[in-house]
Amino acid sequence: MAETTPNHTQTVSGWAAFDTTGEIKPFTFKRRENGVDDVTVEIMYCGMCHTDLHCARNEWGNSMYPLVPGHEITGIITKVGSNVREFKVGDGAGIGFMAASCLECELCESNQENYCDKLQPTSNGVFWDGSITYGGYSKMIVADKRFVVRIPENLPLDSAAPLLCAGITVFSPMKDNNMLQSPGKKMGVVGLGGLGHMAVKFAKAFGLHVTVISTSPSKEKEAKERLGADSFVVSTDIKQMKMARKSLDFIIDTVSANHSLGGVLELLKLNGTLVIVGAPDKPFELPAFPLVFGKRAVKGTIIGGMKETQEMMDLCGKHNITSDVEVIKPHEINQAMTRLANNDVRYRFVIDIAERSSSL
Amino acid sequence: MAETTPNHTQTVSGWAAFDTTGEIKPFTFKRRENGVDDVTVEIMYCGMCHTDLHCARNEWGNSMYPLVPGHEITGIITKVGSNVREFKVGDGAGIGFMAASCLECELCESNQENYCDKLQPTSNGVFWDGSITYGGYSKMIVADKRFVVRIPENLPLDSAAPLLCAGITVFSPMKDNNMLQSPGKKMGVVGLGGLGHMAVKFAKAFGLHVTVISTSPSKEKEAKERLGADSFVVSTDIKQMKMARKSLDFIIDTVSANHSLGGVLELLKLNGTLVIVGAPDKPFELPAFPLVFGKRAVKGTIIGGMKETQEMMDLCGKHNITSDVEVIKPHEINQAMTRLANNDVRYRFVIDIAERSSSL
Repeated sequence: MAETTPNHTQTVSGWAAFDTTGEIKPFTFKRRENGVDDVTVEIMYCGMCHTDLHCARNEWGNSMYPLVPGHEITGIITKVGSNVREFKVGDGAGIGFMAASCLECELCESNQENYCDKLQPTSNGVFWDGSITYGGYSKMIVADKRFVVRIPENLPLDSAAPLLCAGITVFSPMKDNNMLQSPGKKMGVVGLGGLGHMAVKFAKAFGLHVTVISTSPSKEKEAKERLGADSFVVSTDIKQMKMARKSLDFIIDTVSANHSLGGVLELLKLNGTLVIVGAPDKPFELPAFPLVFGKRAVKGTIIGGMKETQEMMDLCGKHNITSDVEVIKPHEINQAMTRLANNDVRYRFVIDIAERSSSL
Repeated sequence: MAETTPNHTQTVSGWAAFDTTGEIKPFTFKRRENGVDDVTVEIMYCGMCHTDLHCARNEWGNSMYPLVPGHEITGIITKVGSNVREFKVGDGAGIGFMAASCLECELCESNQENYCDKLQPTSNGVFWDGSITYGGYSKMIVADKRFVVRIPENLPLDSAAPLLCAGITVFSPMKDNNMLQSPGKKMGVVGLGGLGHMAVKFAKAFGLHVTVISTSPSKEKEAKERLGADSFVVSTDIKQMKMARKSLDFIIDTVSANHSLGGVLELLKLNGTLVIVGAPDKPFELPAFPLVFGKRAVKGTIIGGMKETQEMMDLCGKHNITSDVEVIKPHEINQAMTRLANNDVRYRFVIDIAERSSSL
């Protein structure tokens, strides 16, 4: 579709998957002209989310090849449309999961466009003009101003990139469940990966007491010493889990592998809330007793609205919060994909798209 | 234990299960003297809850025989202790699931004693004095004033009895989720039994739009014409379930049989809440997608605190809300138990304990 859209005149170099092997190779394609509401961003960095892997390999069955992944994009604005007052050339900008929504429904109007029925993603979606969206594994992108955020000047563009998806995914439920202004509350984080380590960082910035719950005892030292977690519980250790019963006010479960929620629920106090941000392919097992007798809640959530994404960015600027990243070059993407599939990353791969350091 | 407690001097006639057959037979036992904080209640009626059946048959493995079931008790106060100002002789009184709690913890102090770790039930529990508690299938009971509610004078004592458990179990989450002051909101009720029919009645009294979700198409007429439900969805009818997608703000699921929550979750709007009040023995299946993409919540809850039980009673008096009941005589208990096991009751059996009509 993209090729037949007349306004798609700008040639862009990028990297795409071409089939279900998911192998990423160079790909040259067209993007639309910068419209009146658009900004053009020279992409500096793009984070690698697990979703990129799923889409590259068509694991969700909806991939449109060639597929340019990437929705944790940071860069510099090089052009703004005539209607754009919010940004100017030279600004640091971030683009996340969303490329478009209906802009008219109740959800769009209440800054919850991330739940709009007509939401279209930045990669592997269909834009308003009918073109397939190509993501951030590319040198340049054109985006509607409503789906762009400002990056505070003090934040490095490489380690800020994962905030656009990993960051907002855990920030949004923390805000929604009143964890931003509740210093001293006890929060649990299940899984210490890209999302989990961001949750720990936010929690510490907002004065919460943080317990990391993980299957890997080896992560305890790092969780406590580097990320500042207050406590660490090995989820397979029955004794430790029992000791921690009824101790937490709020838990974010970032694990997308299939698991039962019973043990984690038991860690919550009465009225406590467990937020699910992963989406395993099989249903969770939800035992009734810890839910009912503990008056507990299990809630779902996905990314966040643009307004709260900007709010998160501004708070990250204020508290100097970014992701821990491993920066790679574009020719290392396939190797990084393999490591990503094995959860072998601390804590997010970010592609140095512009390769400024070597190209200068 | 009860037999060795010195202050247990009052002889009471009742009905008890003696073994795992669950057969109910006459049983004469002792109750304590009326203490300074106690009220003595001549029992008029006792509702039959599914829990009675589980306990009589030791299906939860914790039954202490002889077991006198019953925790939906209404009657007339015949004695009050010297510390009791809240009640007087001749008052209509109700006693529900709880006989005792610690009275000291954070939960007891915040009127959430129904979640106190030391909660003891009215039947098959262990009271403060070490005696086993005998429930409402008996002619008389002695209860601490803190676990007794006033029955408004306009409510018949037979149809008010199920309010003490079936009623408060659905009222509490409705109050907790702000459904009492939200006329026009759309509420769903899964399962039209003892709990479900009370939820429909409360919802209509508070001006909600009510959809009954049931596996039995045969219940539609009654749900709408007799109970006033606005809509009816057959949960096994894929087309009907699809039509009702994203239409409800709040759902109470009263079904205690094992089932997946996915279909029911899909009926909720964004941010909607599904409350679970039943406790199947196997875990629920909770698919992540409808939870996450719909930003929905699943919450558990069990009965209610004494303060809100009184609040419910007073509102029932104001709105003239009672349970639909089938009143039976004590010699019909076993027959009713069998029908209860088959869900063959509209909507609650209530035992005419005092048998005033025939004994006068």
